[in-house]
Amino acid sequence: APMTGELRCQCIDVITKMIPLKHIANVELIPEGPYCAISEVIATMTNGKRVCLDTTARWVKMIIERILQQKSSTP
Amino acid sequence: APMTGELRCQCIDVITKMIPLKHIANVELIPEGPYCAISEVIATMTNGKRVCLDTTARWVKMIIERILQQKSSTP
Repeated sequence: APMTGELRCQCIDVITKMIPLKHIANVELIPEGPYCAISEVIATMTNGKRVCLDTTARWVKMIIERILQQKSSTP
Repeated sequence: APMTGELRCQCIDVITKMIPLKHIANVELIPEGPYCAISEVIATMTNGKRVCLDTTARWVKMIIERILQQKSSTP
């Protein structure tokens, strides 16, 4: 699970098992930066649990695409 | 700017102007859910400001792709 302090990499390990979109409350994408040399993706699940996702995994990209394709405010 | 409470839609408006990736600290993707019928994308900028992005804008998708393509922990 990710550590709380943002001033360093937050993910020690990543989960490989796929999470259904309906169990995901939000997905946070953190670009590489001054505090962490790698990009990280952290999902907060509807049960409140935060898990690090594998940025290279196909299902992670598909989940992100599906969120972007959902209805949006702009017509 | 997004409101704080998560128990409703957080974005009143979205910015159209592109933000360079180097000014983005993180991007939060919020799927449609019980509290908000649309998906929302909120960027936190390196200056701490939070702004809502247009989920349909091409540059938003490109920024997300670039973050996912950056070096990651998994070989």
